[in-house]
Amino acid sequence: MQELKERIKREGKNLGDGILKVDGFINHQVDPGLMDACGKEFARRFSQIGATKILTAEISGIAPAITTGFHLGLPVVYARKTKPITMPDQVFLTLTPSHTKGRTVELIISPEFLAVGERILIIDDFLASGATILGLVRLAQTAGASVVAIGALIEKNFEGGRDALAHLGVPVESLAVVSAMEGENILFADD
Amino acid sequence: MQELKERIKREGKNLGDGILKVDGFINHQVDPGLMDACGKEFARRFSQIGATKILTAEISGIAPAITTGFHLGLPVVYARKTKPITMPDQVFLTLTPSHTKGRTVELIISPEFLAVGERILIIDDFLASGATILGLVRLAQTAGASVVAIGALIEKNFEGGRDALAHLGVPVESLAVVSAMEGENILFADD
Repeated sequence: MQELKERIKREGKNLGDGILKVDGFINHQVDPGLMDACGKEFARRFSQIGATKILTAEISGIAPAITTGFHLGLPVVYARKTKPITMPDQVFLTLTPSHTKGRTVELIISPEFLAVGERILIIDDFLASGATILGLVRLAQTAGASVVAIGALIEKNFEGGRDALAHLGVPVESLAVVSAMEGENILFADD
Repeated sequence: MQELKERIKREGKNLGDGILKVDGFINHQVDPGLMDACGKEFARRFSQIGATKILTAEISGIAPAITTGFHLGLPVVYARKTKPITMPDQVFLTLTPSHTKGRTVELIISPEFLAVGERILIIDDFLASGATILGLVRLAQTAGASVVAIGALIEKNFEGGRDALAHLGVPVESLAVVSAMEGENILFADD
């Protein structure tokens, strides 16, 4: 998606160790117009998959999941990383390593909002190692739901995430595929 | 706002101790269409205040802030509760008590995204004691920005938040004002 790629080229920063800083428009400061455009593009790509719900992980998956849900007319559930007091005692919980946090985090969903037979579209900001998305897949499967497609704003295709998701046999769409980060240059797979 | 009030009446649950459970459409599962309608309503109410940026707190403020930002054409910054590695070492940080978490939480903003002279519209999901919003006000003021208006999806008008914000002398708008929660009944100020 050209608009997202241009924004990453202009404002993204390679912090080293595989970390791409995009907190000026995605995950601290957010550009709602850009997020709406990304949601519209996900909705176009996933219009035929018959999803019944969108699943993401707090925090930075929320913005693109909401705009995608708006354009597809679907509810969004975001997995929590700490259990709020409004959640029942029995929950779906899985552990997943977080590269940017340097530790394992919990992903928690209330059984109230994930049911047997639902067809889940997973949306997140990054597809890197795939660990967070695989955590969401485990939660969906534990609930008896099936994952029908996966979308990420930005894929870093040198971290193995696409291969890690291949066994699911579902469409995986990324709006910008970063193939390398060398010094100040961020290179895209299709440039 | 009628649509939001009806949804709270239908699906909101009084958990006792002042806790209103709305995690089926606001803060775990999210209804993107409802959030868009709320954002449109905030944009209508705040169209004349000359805001340059929207400020909210992760996590549950993000959805209404994004939709409001979309309809006003403004960037959104959400204060983080843990400092990500993409953030510089020098940050704006304040502490605020969290009723639903039962402890003090940090609110952190990168100086990259909050500048002297900005005119800040604060959007959050709840106005209860006002503690979180006052934390956001302190961050804005520390940065040399000024808060020009405050919007909350749901105000609980028996917890003192509006009085706590009165000294700011700015418009405070809530889309649904809950005046009491008695057993299974959730009562609204304007019913």
